[in-house]
Amino acid sequence: MTARDDTTAAMPTGMSGPCFASDNYAGAHPSVLAALARANVGPARAYGEDDITRAARERIVAELGHGAEPFFVFLGTAANVLSLAAMTRPHHAVLCAETAHINVDECGAPEKHLGAKLYSVSTPDGKLTPELLRPLLVHKGNEHHNQPRAISIAQCTELGTLYAPDEVRALADFAHENGMFLHMDGARLANAAAALGLTLRQASSDLGVDALSLGGTKNGLMFGEAVVFFRPEFAAEFPYIRKQALQLCSKMRFIAAQFLALLEGGLWRENASHANAMATLLAQRLAGAPGVVIDQQPQTNAVFVQLPAAALDRLHERFAFYTWDFERNVARFMTSFATTPDEVETFAAAVRAIAGEETAKA
Amino acid sequence: MTARDDTTAAMPTGMSGPCFASDNYAGAHPSVLAALARANVGPARAYGEDDITRAARERIVAELGHGAEPFFVFLGTAANVLSLAAMTRPHHAVLCAETAHINVDECGAPEKHLGAKLYSVSTPDGKLTPELLRPLLVHKGNEHHNQPRAISIAQCTELGTLYAPDEVRALADFAHENGMFLHMDGARLANAAAALGLTLRQASSDLGVDALSLGGTKNGLMFGEAVVFFRPEFAAEFPYIRKQALQLCSKMRFIAAQFLALLEGGLWRENASHANAMATLLAQRLAGAPGVVIDQQPQTNAVFVQLPAAALDRLHERFAFYTWDFERNVARFMTSFATTPDEVETFAAAVRAIAGEETAKA
Amino acid sequence: MTARDDTTAAMPTGMSGPCFASDNYAGAHPSVLAALARANVGPARAYGEDDITRAARERIVAELGHGAEPFFVFLGTAANVLSLAAMTRPHHAVLCAETAHINVDECGAPEKHLGAKLYSVSTPDGKLTPELLRPLLVHKGNEHHNQPRAISIAQCTELGTLYAPDEVRALADFAHENGMFLHMDGARLANAAAALGLTLRQASSDLGVDALSLGGTKNGLMFGEAVVFFRPEFAAEFPYIRKQALQLCSKMRFIAAQFLALLEGGLWRENASHANAMATLLAQRLAGAPGVVIDQQPQTNAVFVQLPAAALDRLHERFAFYTWDFERNVARFMTSFATTPDEVETFAAAVRAIAGEETAKA
Amino acid sequence: MTARDDTTAAMPTGMSGPCFASDNYAGAHPSVLAALARANVGPARAYGEDDITRAARERIVAELGHGAEPFFVFLGTAANVLSLAAMTRPHHAVLCAETAHINVDECGAPEKHLGAKLYSVSTPDGKLTPELLRPLLVHKGNEHHNQPRAISIAQCTELGTLYAPDEVRALADFAHENGMFLHMDGARLANAAAALGLTLRQASSDLGVDALSLGGTKNGLMFGEAVVFFRPEFAAEFPYIRKQALQLCSKMRFIAAQFLALLEGGLWRENASHANAMATLLAQRLAGAPGVVIDQQPQTNAVFVQLPAAALDRLHERFAFYTWDFERNVARFMTSFATTPDEVETFAAAVRAIAGEETAKA
Repeated sequence: MTARDDTTAAMPTGMSGPCFASDNYAGAHPSVLAALARANVGPARAYGEDDITRAARERIVAELGHGAEPFFVFLGTAANVLSLAAMTRPHHAVLCAETAHINVDECGAPEKHLGAKLYSVSTPDGKLTPELLRPLLVHKGNEHHNQPRAISIAQCTELGTLYAPDEVRALADFAHENGMFLHMDGARLANAAAALGLTLRQASSDLGVDALSLGGTKNGLMFGEAVVFFRPEFAAEFPYIRKQALQLCSKMRFIAAQFLALLEGGLWRENASHANAMATLLAQRLAGAPGVVIDQQPQTNAVFVQLPAAALDRLHERFAFYTWDFERNVARFMTSFATTPDEVETFAAAVRAIAGEETAKA
Repeated sequence: MTARDDTTAAMPTGMSGPCFASDNYAGAHPSVLAALARANVGPARAYGEDDITRAARERIVAELGHGAEPFFVFLGTAANVLSLAAMTRPHHAVLCAETAHINVDECGAPEKHLGAKLYSVSTPDGKLTPELLRPLLVHKGNEHHNQPRAISIAQCTELGTLYAPDEVRALADFAHENGMFLHMDGARLANAAAALGLTLRQASSDLGVDALSLGGTKNGLMFGEAVVFFRPEFAAEFPYIRKQALQLCSKMRFIAAQFLALLEGGLWRENASHANAMATLLAQRLAGAPGVVIDQQPQTNAVFVQLPAAALDRLHERFAFYTWDFERNVARFMTSFATTPDEVETFAAAVRAIAGEETAKA
Repeated sequence: MTARDDTTAAMPTGMSGPCFASDNYAGAHPSVLAALARANVGPARAYGEDDITRAARERIVAELGHGAEPFFVFLGTAANVLSLAAMTRPHHAVLCAETAHINVDECGAPEKHLGAKLYSVSTPDGKLTPELLRPLLVHKGNEHHNQPRAISIAQCTELGTLYAPDEVRALADFAHENGMFLHMDGARLANAAAALGLTLRQASSDLGVDALSLGGTKNGLMFGEAVVFFRPEFAAEFPYIRKQALQLCSKMRFIAAQFLALLEGGLWRENASHANAMATLLAQRLAGAPGVVIDQQPQTNAVFVQLPAAALDRLHERFAFYTWDFERNVARFMTSFATTPDEVETFAAAVRAIAGEETAKA
Repeated sequence: MTARDDTTAAMPTGMSGPCFASDNYAGAHPSVLAALARANVGPARAYGEDDITRAARERIVAELGHGAEPFFVFLGTAANVLSLAAMTRPHHAVLCAETAHINVDECGAPEKHLGAKLYSVSTPDGKLTPELLRPLLVHKGNEHHNQPRAISIAQCTELGTLYAPDEVRALADFAHENGMFLHMDGARLANAAAALGLTLRQASSDLGVDALSLGGTKNGLMFGEAVVFFRPEFAAEFPYIRKQALQLCSKMRFIAAQFLALLEGGLWRENASHANAMATLLAQRLAGAPGVVIDQQPQTNAVFVQLPAAALDRLHERFAFYTWDFERNVARFMTSFATTPDEVETFAAAVRAIAGEETAKA
């Protein structure tokens, strides 16, 4: 069993030093805060009928391509669940990785809201492939079984790994050939696109994705995500689905203004690239140190590191991070837009020192 | 049929003059915005395990009394639905007024989330009484019918009317005597408490309320509401209900900081009293004008006014407000913390002039 | 408040005399029992892949017209809920009479299963009209409100009243003109068709009905109803909906055999006509008796009669029937295929005698 | 991937010879049919308020022990789902084997009705153990994860295997120690109890089971199962849950009469023992034949046999049975109360002959 971001048992305790717990431990980017202040002038129509929301929706269309249909919601779990709600009915199944956020970390919100079943498969790296999924189609047409209707992938994945563009395209083709749709959980799409050198469009709609959870919170927003559909039939009834699912923000300009700040001038890429770079830097600083094994090189903004158990305990006293795998003593160190090189250096030095000491003891 | 806040057909069109559409057309109070900026320093534990959230929860307990169990959520519809989710199972019924927000304005979110049925009754003024509710208990113990389990009232009501404290108490007693619980939709509890000269506690928990939707957005927050339970059994499993219902905010300090700003120093009362006073002023300015009939004197921050149909049309060109009852040509003029006396005077003058002209024509 | 078939409070107590409680108090018709015995020979494929089920489905198509798509389920509540499940999503609304079985007598099964909201209207006689329904469309296109998607009528109604064919047709046209579908709860369609002198097809599909709950249990079956769709898009995914909703009978031949017995040789009409005739006879025998007021002449197999309260009490000691309206002392006397003329005479004599005595006392 | 009873792809095709497809391919036992005819005399109160239902419920209490609370439902999937509905809320999890009927063969009915998540584990033989389940408790108390609330086991399992009494007891203890309840899917409990030489009570309530799906259909009933609770808190609200879940039979005496027939005079054990014996006989007749590998010795009424692929094809032309595992060419031969020794001999001879021929060819 692995521990996750949000496992109470593994909750980061030390907050005295720099924080490598999660990108949602960071606050809002200063530009985002400034945009909120600018948006707070006079009254505005509620529920998204205001000018800022219109501008932000147009901006997302500009980023993701003609035909994109964006809708703002409050949080990432909602973006995922509502994307899938537009695609499925209760007798359908959603295909996902065993480690998917929708399968593990959402307290069963998908099952509760969709009424549908998740068919999950074990993966080596958090990534799905047509080969892994094909056996899940065996009961197509059989009334005793939920019918596969959506494939849900995360880019980057919960393990920090990346799909290559043609891997996403292959999943989209597989979905469409089999009467299914492809959903992308893009809570960290910015990190993925930055790492791959792609635009948001090249990383999603251009690859055949049918619905996208476009993340904001983990990349510097105070709150707010977007659901973006690339098929008009999903968008048509979505306003009702969103309202009924408790995700229609009355003062919506305040989500929209944040997205405008993130997308204008490429702040999304700047933030994500910085977070990715900080993870890379951390991995470099830790590489080769006695007692430190880089379990997985960072592809985006997380480094997975194996350490002596005692070292983990000592580090937890001062620093916030998650033990990811208790059996193997693997920690996840996660960076954000707000992580500084100094914080990386401080933390890396501490990890090296403590790991070295504990290794020497053993 | 009446039109509501949120009816597209009746959506305010003119935004060139002062806005009397709804208290959710206002932005965030400057103190709230300042609090958000102050909260945006460094990392903080996610999901409410941070110091600001702790302080805000303690502050709510201080306001509402020992034993209060507050939980932050994103929006008012969620506060209502989740309060009821803690109290009911799908075979239960929620008793409410026909005009209740949960019955009319939430796109069926209660039915979808609870699986339960709403039993609604017609009321003269949006207010429930034990007498109105008693007939709904006729099928108690009969397996063919949803079993009454919760009474949900709004204080103030959707019609701007107020329950006197002993009226709330009577409903609480009636609920408890019949194996039910009392939920209060307090989206505008501040306006009610201010109008009645009560503390928040005197207006809710002291009267036997079991669960409270404590409003924030309509009283000057950017976003954020609280669910407050006064029975520990509802609080015990609520964290799971909240997460599953898409209402667990990751950067929760930003909701909490707003509530702190609202509750500290009595800003909640100041804002609400101001809004109420502006409605009273408006009613005074309109009283007795030709063509203007005050349909309902403001008890809180809304004035319902009957005007010539043509006057409504002309006013809609310049001002944002809702036509509430198309058959009787009744408009709702709603004030907020942000409404200024000047805006009231400007608007009142326009209403008097136009109503007078149209009356003269007729 | 009225009491219903199934109200414990009003449950028939006396079972020593003939039974006029409900058509589901009757057992199975002898021909139906014989058909069950004939079907019980050797093994047969489960889940409806057997020859008897095939024959019964073909027989229903023969009765209801080419394009009919029948599916067997266990009970009438399921036939209603599943018909509507095929037509709606949770953000939709089902329009029905306030007195509809789906609104009053199904313990909220529609809300639980559909997640949708019922919009009910008060009617004088249990019958909907386009005029009564039109105001319910006022919020079409407004995301804050469930969107009207299905109209559900009962033929005959729960009050024993009948829609004329052109009244059904008008509702079907109204539904289709407004993007909705028409569902007919035909738990007693046989009684209605018999009373109107129509075939089952003339009484349903020919009038524009999109989905039909075709009753069996109340007309002489041991158990079993059918959902019949007249649009292929509803049938396509229905097998999964049925299985998921706990309505796929493994030994389905035993439902099918009963339907064959009911439909072959016109037993359905014979049973229903007999029940109707017994209600007419009872009304004739009661007409004009002192203390007896025929509250509603039987159109099908129920007579509603106003009696002195004390007479109701005394009758309840010996006979099974329901007090329908406690305020007005109205009883419902319901006949079935199994009611005999002798039972009617015995019961009518008792009602006349007791009503006469109590009237004399008063 | 394995194929199941109900996989269309693997549906038995040949029905010309004896049937070894499933125990739900059999009809009703003659005594059951006779009981239905006896019950069909005169009217009876609907919805279970009749004398036969009362007697049948008392009979079940007599079998299962004081405190048992039985409720009749239509089918096995419903018995499972409703048992679990009484125990869980949507934020809970149900722990089961990967191969469990509730996980694989119910078209997601548990997720749809409960709103909860199933946590399934891989097992060698379809049987759960505390050791297998313990890792699923890792997220107890963490709001991001469904909370374990029920363990569901099948006795006998879907693979025909049996829990020893102390294995069930160990699971009950494990459940109770961890704030959970134990549900037993007893669709074939009779076969298990017969095989183990236990009474129904010794096989269920005596072992700490909290809720039991007591099977009828697979052991000679025409239709009908029972949910039996051993905790009064589950029974208290169950009538509403049953009605709302479309499982309240109006002419309930006809389910009850069948159960009386099955339980009186020990017909349940007779039927089940006979089915078990026929499976044993079949295994004996096949043992050692060329090309025939007994993949799993029958513990109850199923034999799993590995055969040459071509032999499977040829046998399918004449006999009804399921290919269980296409990869390994394993067939499931299932017997029922209606299987005769002659049928076993005929079938065994055919299997031996064809397997032998195909083996010789290869």
